[in-house]
Amino acid sequence: MTLDKNWFVEVAPEAGFAQALKIRGKLHEEQTPYQKLEIFETENWGNLMTLDGLVMLTARDNFVYHEMMSHPPIMNHPDPRRVAIVCGGVCGTLREGLRHPAIEKVIQIEIDKAVTRAAEKYFPELTEANDDPRAELLFSDAIEWMKRQEPGSLDVIIVDSTDPVGPAVGLFQSAFYADCLRALGETGVLVQQSESPLLHMDILKAMRAEMKSAGFEQTRTYQFCQPTYPSGWWSATLAGVGVDLMEFREQDARELPFEGRYYSADMHRASMAMPPFVEKAFAEDLG
Amino acid sequence: MTLDKNWFVEVAPEAGFAQALKIRGKLHEEQTPYQKLEIFETENWGNLMTLDGLVMLTARDNFVYHEMMSHPPIMNHPDPRRVAIVCGGVCGTLREGLRHPAIEKVIQIEIDKAVTRAAEKYFPELTEANDDPRAELLFSDAIEWMKRQEPGSLDVIIVDSTDPVGPAVGLFQSAFYADCLRALGETGVLVQQSESPLLHMDILKAMRAEMKSAGFEQTRTYQFCQPTYPSGWWSATLAGVGVDLMEFREQDARELPFEGRYYSADMHRASMAMPPFVEKAFAEDLG
Repeated sequence: MTLDKNWFVEVAPEAGFAQALKIRGKLHEEQTPYQKLEIFETENWGNLMTLDGLVMLTARDNFVYHEMMSHPPIMNHPDPRRVAIVCGGVCGTLREGLRHPAIEKVIQIEIDKAVTRAAEKYFPELTEANDDPRAELLFSDAIEWMKRQEPGSLDVIIVDSTDPVGPAVGLFQSAFYADCLRALGETGVLVQQSESPLLHMDILKAMRAEMKSAGFEQTRTYQFCQPTYPSGWWSATLAGVGVDLMEFREQDARELPFEGRYYSADMHRASMAMPPFVEKAFAEDLG
Repeated sequence: MTLDKNWFVEVAPEAGFAQALKIRGKLHEEQTPYQKLEIFETENWGNLMTLDGLVMLTARDNFVYHEMMSHPPIMNHPDPRRVAIVCGGVCGTLREGLRHPAIEKVIQIEIDKAVTRAAEKYFPELTEANDDPRAELLFSDAIEWMKRQEPGSLDVIIVDSTDPVGPAVGLFQSAFYADCLRALGETGVLVQQSESPLLHMDILKAMRAEMKSAGFEQTRTYQFCQPTYPSGWWSATLAGVGVDLMEFREQDARELPFEGRYYSADMHRASMAMPPFVEKAFAEDLG
């Protein structure tokens, strides 16, 4: 069967894998200073945002990604109050982070204002917390911004970036992680999306090595299903200083004042179990 | 981007979703008495088997499905000795089941001999246990076969079937489940693949209801990532009699005499945590 022009197709050439969503039409197209941004209306997934031809999110399944990028690092930190979100311009991670009453401040540093403007228009549910007085939206280069932060000024850093290609490459390197570590001070958690455990083990291992070489004491990868990302099998990786990433505030997670659609205390613990083939690949690096 | 003839494309029309694998060529094509069977060589996923145009398995990712269809029901049963596999002609579930030394007998009832013949040729690693003296391969109608089994003659039934369309529809209905229940007797576990929690909640709920109406005391759905099935987010559902499906032989699972690539005691427990949106959908049925 072939897919006609009524399908948006994303190819992962390195994996010989492609995914496609049936679309009704294109709602928006824009060449920003940084990337090509498009919005499509799909048949079954609500609105779809793509950047340079790659799926960023759909209205239907982004809840998994946004919940799993925000709640685990926050619940892994013993006393999270100050959060920075690197990239994350669609604001879904910001909204989830602000659901935690203990959080006093969330600063989001997105380089491309057009992403946030498009999210406001086409994914208004994701930007509904942008007016929260605890939220600060900066539109600038997060790598440069991180260099300027005071030591110990942040508790949680969420790197909600695109894949490690083009300008995002620097976000996967130890120089950036070292700046994050300094900003976290003695106690802190960083989390970053870390691609597919099945397809991108090389990226995952390299990322964990860069985090360690930047000085993070511990790394921990967790996983979840994300249908519209290549293979539908995705991961995020935590790096910690002064915290035990093997544990999280489980009792607090059972008593959250909001309800997740994907996240719960049980799902948090479950997501941290990794298949033996992944554990084995990670262990090789320590051999 | 469009996909040319070098891609095998599977469309899930009800979900407006498609997946594709890059192929080098077609190795085999056959109209069996039951279905159209094709084997492709892919670029990155090893050999691919399709039935009536739908992905059955690839060499690269079938380990997840086969391990998750066999080990959880076996480890959920207190004393599993006699196993029946309904369908499962590619024999990967059979191989995994036979890894358990306690298992005395596995009978596989596959209607289409051509599937097993093709597996022997194109996925020899899956059929390597077929000569085990504990294995019995029958090629007949499993629905009819199940009607004839003695009460209490089986401990575990694994329904490793295609989707609920065409001849497989009967495998998702209470009449079949009632025959399974009788064959299990006072203590037994049935498991069946139950589609995608995100895309097919209607099928999942209907299946659980049919199991209950057949007389099973308990059902429990668990999940895993399965990249080459629609959405990459898949599930299986247990139905039990005389066993507590909330628990499994966890200590035994930590001491298995073989190593899973996806399955472990931790992954077993993790797979049984379901996202709140799924729990909520299931709870509605009890309201």
